[in-house]
Formats: sequence, structure tokens, C-alpha cells
Amino acid sequence: MLNLENAVERLKDILAQADDNLLKEELDNLHSADIAELFEELDEDERLKCFNVMPEDDAAELLEFLSPQLQVEILSEIDEEKASSIILKMPHDSVADVLGDLDDNDSENYLNKLPERISNQIRELLSYPEDSAGGIMNSDVLTVDKDMTVDEVVSFLRIKAETDKVEFLYIYVTDKSGHLLGVLSLRSLFTTPKYVKVEDIMIKDLVKVHVEDDQEVAAETLSKYGLLAVPVVDHYDKLKGIVTWDDAQDVVEEETTEEILQSSGISAAEYDDDELLEGTIRKSVKARTPWLAVTLLGEFIATIVAKNYDGTLNQLPIIAIFMPLLAGLGGNIGTQSITLMVRGLSTGQVSMSDAFVQIWRESRVGITIGATFGLITALVTWGWHNNVILGVVVGTAMAVNMVMATIIGTVTPFILKKINIDPAIASGPVIATTIDVLGLAVYFSLVTFSLRWLV
Amino acid sequence: MLNLENAVERLKDILAQADDNLLKEELDNLHSADIAELFEELDEDERLKCFNVMPEDDAAELLEFLSPQLQVEILSEIDEEKASSIILKMPHDSVADVLGDLDDNDSENYLNKLPERISNQIRELLSYPEDSAGGIMNSDVLTVDKDMTVDEVVSFLRIKAETDKVEFLYIYVTDKSGHLLGVLSLRSLFTTPKYVKVEDIMIKDLVKVHVEDDQEVAAETLSKYGLLAVPVVDHYDKLKGIVTWDDAQDVVEEETTEEILQSSGISAAEYDDDELLEGTIRKSVKARTPWLAVTLLGEFIATIVAKNYDGTLNQLPIIAIFMPLLAGLGGNIGTQSITLMVRGLSTGQVSMSDAFVQIWRESRVGITIGATFGLITALVTWGWHNNVILGVVVGTAMAVNMVMATIIGTVTPFILKKINIDPAIASGPVIATTIDVLGLAVYFSLVTFSLRWLV
Repeated sequence: MLNLENAVERLKDILAQADDNLLKEELDNLHSADIAELFEELDEDERLKCFNVMPEDDAAELLEFLSPQLQVEILSEIDEEKASSIILKMPHDSVADVLGDLDDNDSENYLNKLPERISNQIRELLSYPEDSAGGIMNSDVLTVDKDMTVDEVVSFLRIKAETDKVEFLYIYVTDKSGHLLGVLSLRSLFTTPKYVKVEDIMIKDLVKVHVEDDQEVAAETLSKYGLLAVPVVDHYDKLKGIVTWDDAQDVVEEETTEEILQSSGISAAEYDDDELLEGTIRKSVKARTPWLAVTLLGEFIATIVAKNYDGTLNQLPIIAIFMPLLAGLGGNIGTQSITLMVRGLSTGQVSMSDAFVQIWRESRVGITIGATFGLITALVTWGWHNNVILGVVVGTAMAVNMVMATIIGTVTPFILKKINIDPAIASGPVIATTIDVLGLAVYFSLVTFSLRWLV
Repeated sequence: MLNLENAVERLKDILAQADDNLLKEELDNLHSADIAELFEELDEDERLKCFNVMPEDDAAELLEFLSPQLQVEILSEIDEEKASSIILKMPHDSVADVLGDLDDNDSENYLNKLPERISNQIRELLSYPEDSAGGIMNSDVLTVDKDMTVDEVVSFLRIKAETDKVEFLYIYVTDKSGHLLGVLSLRSLFTTPKYVKVEDIMIKDLVKVHVEDDQEVAAETLSKYGLLAVPVVDHYDKLKGIVTWDDAQDVVEEETTEEILQSSGISAAEYDDDELLEGTIRKSVKARTPWLAVTLLGEFIATIVAKNYDGTLNQLPIIAIFMPLLAGLGGNIGTQSITLMVRGLSTGQVSMSDAFVQIWRESRVGITIGATFGLITALVTWGWHNNVILGVVVGTAMAVNMVMATIIGTVTPFILKKINIDPAIASGPVIATTIDVLGLAVYFSLVTFSLRWLV
């Protein structure tokens, strides 16, 4: 792969020389994906200079690899005529993505400049929700009529390959009014006699998704059935587009980000990750406050629990200094168990029927680690404070706390899933607080019980 | 998609009737991916009954969709002759995966039963590290000689399509001794005159990876360049295999799991996630202990910090009950910032050059939320304990703590990345502990300073 630092330096050198031919040659030798990476390191002026010397075909390809911010930046700066003819060379779904990120005026402007057939298709794509199958599909699909023969299909493909950028993954078969009937593999074209009708060799049991399905459904379908593309149909079973493996890849990345952010208590489902990193402070605060508020409530309960033992605290204030130690380790090992279970449930490596096996397994892990850490804590505390009973009390609290945290962390995701709450959302902050409350209760009970030997 | 519950019930009904023809018919109507999903819900006996009535082609396809555990279960139970002929129908990389999961004896047994050419290829695949490009590639590649004409290639493809299961993604061009020279698209075959040599139409600037490259490099290459497959070469630039988009998808899922588990302090790089969910307790304990030990050390430091203020604690023991409240919210908001930055750096949405923008942005988010939560805490504490000074002290500590946690959580991933430590690994537990220690110091300093008005 490209050495980014060297390449940036080289490109900046050439830009400094202001020699358009040299610049063009340099860019011509680079893959669009590499240029897109370099663009992130250039300033706006440099990016525009590069973009302007590139042939339109290359510029169109580059645009697809750029981040939405850079797409908007470039399209708002370059000559409008040029921009329109570049847009015309891009796949429809990419155009819809780019235009969706421009403001409405600019986007209307571009749409009006495109041929009507294409602008209508793109308007339709823009009309689907951004996170639906319709919103991510490409409407430019390779379709043939059910009555065509293999020979006719091959001639048709020959023309398509020369004139069009349509993807050659599968060939879909429709009737005259566009209803999806089946799918052909390129492979079958090689092995079937020329005069056979495609209707007779197409695969009829095909997997498809609906335009209004969530994008996640489309991505899961592709991944489950190991497909390169899945057709998207409307209510009348008319073929509207395809979602391809690279669209699905983007969806998976987006959903994973959502899952990861949610695990730390950020309401990521309602906000784009872009918004959380670059949007208004107000949106970020709104996305992050709900679960913090739940934590605040939970921790006030912890405070009330602790307050109950103020008699004990008054008699032996020193016990307070071990509270963060217990809470820290309980929280940590509990989070490990939650994370293992939530991720396992999400990838399918753990299923609901594994619940008891996993709970039993994690309990043993918790007991092993809890006993060890409890012992270490007991010894250190005994040595430090020269008080064997204090050592035993803190060590026991540590062990009980860690075992409890492991079990709660393992059980809760299964319970949440059972009652149809997404374990990824609710687990983290709620469990951490629960562990805090229970841990404190255990610790203070132990201390109170042992008070006569401690004071 | 399939309604799993209904389908399981139906299948179990049919199994109960013990009618092989009915069972065969039912399975014939289901996609292998669906059968694989159903298999997870059946018991061992039922799975074997199903597998035994399936035609060998379908059985081979099903095997690819099954989890490693079920693959091993089935292959060790069914007739060896049948197993060998099913294995022969699977792609080489899948066979290598399956045999890699069997114990050495069984795997040797099967290898010896396969034709020598194939068993040699599979032995070679098995010789690469499991997480290298060589370990995940498929050695069965569509290659043509550079001197062939387009017409010859088309005839060759016709034969391949009939006799072989090789994938039709790209056609690679090699010389007589197997050195990789270029790649052809199927598309170009449709548009080039028949007598042209492939050498003249192949793309020579092709992206490739090395057998010994990490699997992650292969997956990133595919994703960056938007490819369906990437060729894998050895030291002599000889073509050894291809890594396809579905292999890459598995790698991405594996790496994401690793990233997620590491964020909770599980050393997931050295252990398979399978091992962490199903391996020995000893392995799980070893994977989970290192960062817990770091936390233990850090929290003991927190305890020492708190111990420093035992004079204050003795005079006003009640202040101890607010410790979990402060630690809980500091830890929570800090984790949110870490998670946002670590994930952003990992997907590329945040780059090192964004560091100061993000730190400034997160600081403002932290100040907004911290001020709000500080105010709420102050009011609640004032009302509850009827002590306005206590309210001000606890509220201020809350605000300072939350702002500090946000900034530490945002800054640390950038610093770690700058000094070439993976932010995903070190961030979580270390930062949580740091926040605990600093938060306690701030709180106790505030209380000590205000003591004369509090007691």
C-alpha cells in the first residue's frame, strides 16, 4: 500500500512548482483511493488545484472515495458545468449520497442540470429514508427481459459493457412491467446453449429485500446468504435497485459504531456519528445526557445506601477510603462480562440457549479472579494498616463484589434480550450503577457486622 | 427472511415422523444459510439425521455456513468416505478452515484420502499462520496465461464454469511459471475483439498482498480500494491465492470484536474470541487479569490519596458517602469521550490533525454537562442534608470532575496514538483509574478547604 507521508510530501512539492502537467501525471499514477487519502492531508486550495487538472472520469471516481465533507467542499467550489458532467459519470447511489449532503438549493441546481430520466431516478433515491434499503441502493441495475435468449443477453451485455458503468455482479430477470422474476449468474451464460430463454435457466428462489426495509436488514441478508448484491423491490414486487456488498460494508461499520457508542451510554441511534463528532454542542449534549442522568439517579441511590451506614462511618471513618477500590474493580470485571456477552449475542457466537452455560462459566471465572484479588487486597490492607480484621473485611468485600459483578454482568444482557430490549443499549451504565449500589451494601454490612473487632 | 421459530417447529415435526423423503424435500426447499441457522436449534441427533439425507452438493454447501463447532461435530460422526467426498466439493480455503479445527489425526486422515494435488494445496494453506493473508486466502484462482487470446479465455471460462466451483470475480493473468502479471475484468472480455492477447488488455497496476501479511492488511486493502478480491503473492511474486470480500468481512468482524473486548480490558489479541467464550477457565482468567491488575494498582493509589485526607474524614465522615456518586459520573462521561475518540480514530472519521478541534469540542460538551449535573447535585445535596455549603462543595466537585474526565478521555487516545500505542487497548481501564484518583484529590481538597464552614 501507499506510504502516505512520502506521497503527501511529493505531492506538496509538485503543487509548489505549479506545473499542471507534472501534477496531472503524478495524479494519473495514483489510485483514486490513494488520492482520496492524500486529499485529507492537503489544504482546500491544494485539493482544488489537484481536482481541476484531473480528467472528468478520474474526478468522478475520486469523488466517490472522498468523505462527504470533502465532496461538498469541492462541488461547491468548482465550475458548475464541470460538476454536472462529473456527476453524470457517477453511479446513481453515489450521486444521491453527494446531493443529499449538499444544501437543498445547490442540490436542486444540480438536479435540474441532469437529463430528466436520471434526475428522476435520483430524486426517487433521495425520497427514501437515508437508513433504508431504498436509501442505500443503486437504481442502475443490469436487467434483462424473461423472453430474451442467452445469445440476446450476451449481445446486450456487450453493449452495456461499452456504454455504461452498471455493475456486472448478477443479471436480474424481469417481465415487461419490471416485476422481479429471477436472477442469472454470469457463469450460467457460459454454459448454456445460445437459444435457451433466460426464463428457463434463471434462479427463481431469490433472496430480496423491500425498499422500506431498514438498511441493516439488507446488510444482514447479504452477509447471511453470502451474496455480492441483493435486489430491492417495492410493494408491487417491481425491481427498484440493488444493494451491493460495499454498501453493506458501510452499513455494518455504521451499525458497529452505533453499538460501540451505545455501550458507553451515548444515544447513538438517533444521531449520526458525524453529528456526534462535528455537529452542534447541543446535539452532543442531548445524545450524552440521558444515560448520564440514569447514572446520576442510580448513584444517588448508592449515596442513600451509604448514608444508612453513617453510624458505622462515624465510628470508623477510615473504611471510606476503600470505597473507590471496591467500586473500581467491581465495575471493571462486570464490564468485561457484559462486553463479552453483548458482543457474543450480537455476532451470534452466543445464543439465548447458551445462557446458563455462560453464566456458570463466567461465575467460575469471577470466583477465580475474585478470590485471588480478594486475597491480595486482604494481605495489602493487613500489611498497610497493620490490622488483620480490616484486611479480612476489605478482602472479603472485594471477592464478593467481583463475583457479584461478574454474575450481574453476565445475566443482565440475557434478561434484556429475553424481554426484547437491546442489550447493547441498556447494559453498560445501568449495570455499573447496580454493581456500585450492591457493592456498597455488601461492604458496609460486612464492616458494620465486624465493627466490634475493628474499632 | 426466514421465520426461525416456525421453521424449527416444522422441522422438528418432520424429524419426529422419521420420514426421510419428507425430510429431504423440506431441506431441499431451504437455503443452506437458513439450514445452518436451524441447525443451531436442533440437537446433535437431529442434525445428523438431516445431514445424512442431504445430497452431497447441498451438504458441502451447508458445511461452509456452519460454525466450526458444528463442522467438527458432523465430520467426526458421519461416514468417512462420505465426508471425504463432501470435502472434495468445498472450496479449498473452507476445507483448510474445517480441517484446521479438527484434531491432527482426523485431519491427516482426511488429507490422505484426498487426491494428492488437492491435499498438497490444502497442506500449504494450513502451513500459513491462521491470521495471515495466506491463512484466509483461497488457493483456487481463475488464472490465464498472458499469451492467450480473448477467444481462448472465453472457451477456457466455459470449461471452468462447467467443471469447477472456482469464483468468477476477476481473471488473473500469469506467465508460464505463475508470476502475477495483471488482472482482467469479465467486462473487458465482452468488449474486446476475439484475437487480442490478454497481455494487451490486462490491468497491470494491480493491488496485491503478500502471503505473510496480516489478515487485517488484506481486509483493509479490499475495503480501501473497493475490490471484490485481492490477489495474494509469495516472495517471488508468484500468485498463491485470492482473499475475497466475504473473507474480508469475517476479518473485519473478528477485528471489531477484538477492539470491543480490548476496550473493556480483555487481552483479546492473544486469544480467540471462541476461547474466551468456550475455552478453559484458565485462559479466560489469564486474558482478563492483566488490566484488572493495573486497575487494582491504580485504585490502591486512589486509596493512598484518600488516606492522606484521613484528618478531614475523621472530622466529617459524611463526606465519604458522595465518593461513589462523583466517581460514577466522572467515569461515565470520561468513557463516553474515550469511546468516541477511539472509534473515530479506528474508522478514520477522526484523524490526528483533528486532535485540537476535538479536544476543544469535547471540553465544551464536558463544561455544559458538568455545569448542569453539578448544579443538580448541589441542589439535591443542599435539600437533602439541609446544608448549603455541603451542596456547593459536592456540586463543584461534580462539575470539575466531569469536565476533567471529559478532557482526559479525549486527550489520552490522541497521546497514545502519537506514541504508537493502540488507543483501543490502553484507554479504558487506565483512564477510569486516573479519573478516580484525580477526582478524589479534587473532592478531598475542596472539602478540606471548606472544612471550617462545613463542620
